[in-house]
Amino acid sequence: MKTINSRSPIILASKSPRRKRLLEQAHIEFSVVDSLVDEDLVSAATPQLHALTLAEAKAWAVAQKHPEAWIIGADSIVVIDDMILNKPDSAAHAKQMLNHLSGRTHRVITGYSIMCKARNQRKNDTCITHVTFKDLTGGEIDWYLGTPEPWDKAGAYAIQGIAAFMIKSIQGSYTNVVGLPVCEVLDYLLKHKIIDRTTEKIHKTRLASGI
Amino acid sequence: MKTINSRSPIILASKSPRRKRLLEQAHIEFSVVDSLVDEDLVSAATPQLHALTLAEAKAWAVAQKHPEAWIIGADSIVVIDDMILNKPDSAAHAKQMLNHLSGRTHRVITGYSIMCKARNQRKNDTCITHVTFKDLTGGEIDWYLGTPEPWDKAGAYAIQGIAAFMIKSIQGSYTNVVGLPVCEVLDYLLKHKIIDRTTEKIHKTRLASGI
Repeated sequence: MKTINSRSPIILASKSPRRKRLLEQAHIEFSVVDSLVDEDLVSAATPQLHALTLAEAKAWAVAQKHPEAWIIGADSIVVIDDMILNKPDSAAHAKQMLNHLSGRTHRVITGYSIMCKARNQRKNDTCITHVTFKDLTGGEIDWYLGTPEPWDKAGAYAIQGIAAFMIKSIQGSYTNVVGLPVCEVLDYLLKHKIIDRTTEKIHKTRLASGI
Repeated sequence: MKTINSRSPIILASKSPRRKRLLEQAHIEFSVVDSLVDEDLVSAATPQLHALTLAEAKAWAVAQKHPEAWIIGADSIVVIDDMILNKPDSAAHAKQMLNHLSGRTHRVITGYSIMCKARNQRKNDTCITHVTFKDLTGGEIDWYLGTPEPWDKAGAYAIQGIAAFMIKSIQGSYTNVVGLPVCEVLDYLLKHKIIDRTTEKIHKTRLASGI
């Protein structure tokens, strides 16, 4: 992940390959440290607060060991009828989720926390995107369940993968549905000069491969 | 692009690597044939008609040589203030476009045409997505222009690339902004049994790499 000049180290406190890929695509220099936070230990009054609390807990856990760094923590949840859909634990569970989402609009809420312990600075916020599924047939759901895609995904789908065929429209940030609201996170990093694009060098060979 | 059973050959009449990637992600078996249509020769009364006419012209050109196949043609345009933004022809042109898009909402219109000449069947339609940019600083625009990304893209940006940091929100289909409304196109292919997911085999090793 060696790319461009950023003034302070940035650490993504998430083991999600999708978040890593989003920051790589945005050409941020960063490293990854798993927060090891037990997601089941967090309880909150609302889905939004749940995502926010977990995002902050992840960032905070990593900030303890890297106080000088800027830590980015995030947690994404899928919410329909005020119910959080987690990762499916069986084929029947995944099928139930996809039937629930079919033909309807749900929310994807990503809580994100950007903090630097040594500077005593932090921003915690949530980003909400509305996602509308087309009407899925039983055959389409069964076919999708035969792919490896749904199993480690909240709500049993991945918008950036095969599931694109299910998604009629979204309202809000797309990257937020993938796992991190890139525009909002980078806006903070830019405004606080944690990254400074006026002085960055662009590695064209590396860039070219991702386009 | 060897994957899964589809009953008739499908041809993407587009040399766009982004459209090819979208159909690959959707796990469609298809091949690519460049339509060689001269985009400058098409004129139409409205931006929407422009995209539709060009999409159909591309599909039709390929259908002449492959009458038994299902041909998918598409054309995407970026429209702001009823003005079509094409690919930039200079740095100054790209800068002007990004300044125009900054802090505002524009439309991305993709015309798409799905046809089989031998069966005398075709569907022509357009899909519109509203895209809202954040306020870009001069430094951000200059930095982005230093990357190779804007040069071959309508409107001088690529939503699926580095430009994700500029996109505050969208309303509508995301894949439509990338270049092809995957949900709509696959819905047609599924409903007309041009692809049949109930009988498709899934190549798990190939799938796993893209997720």
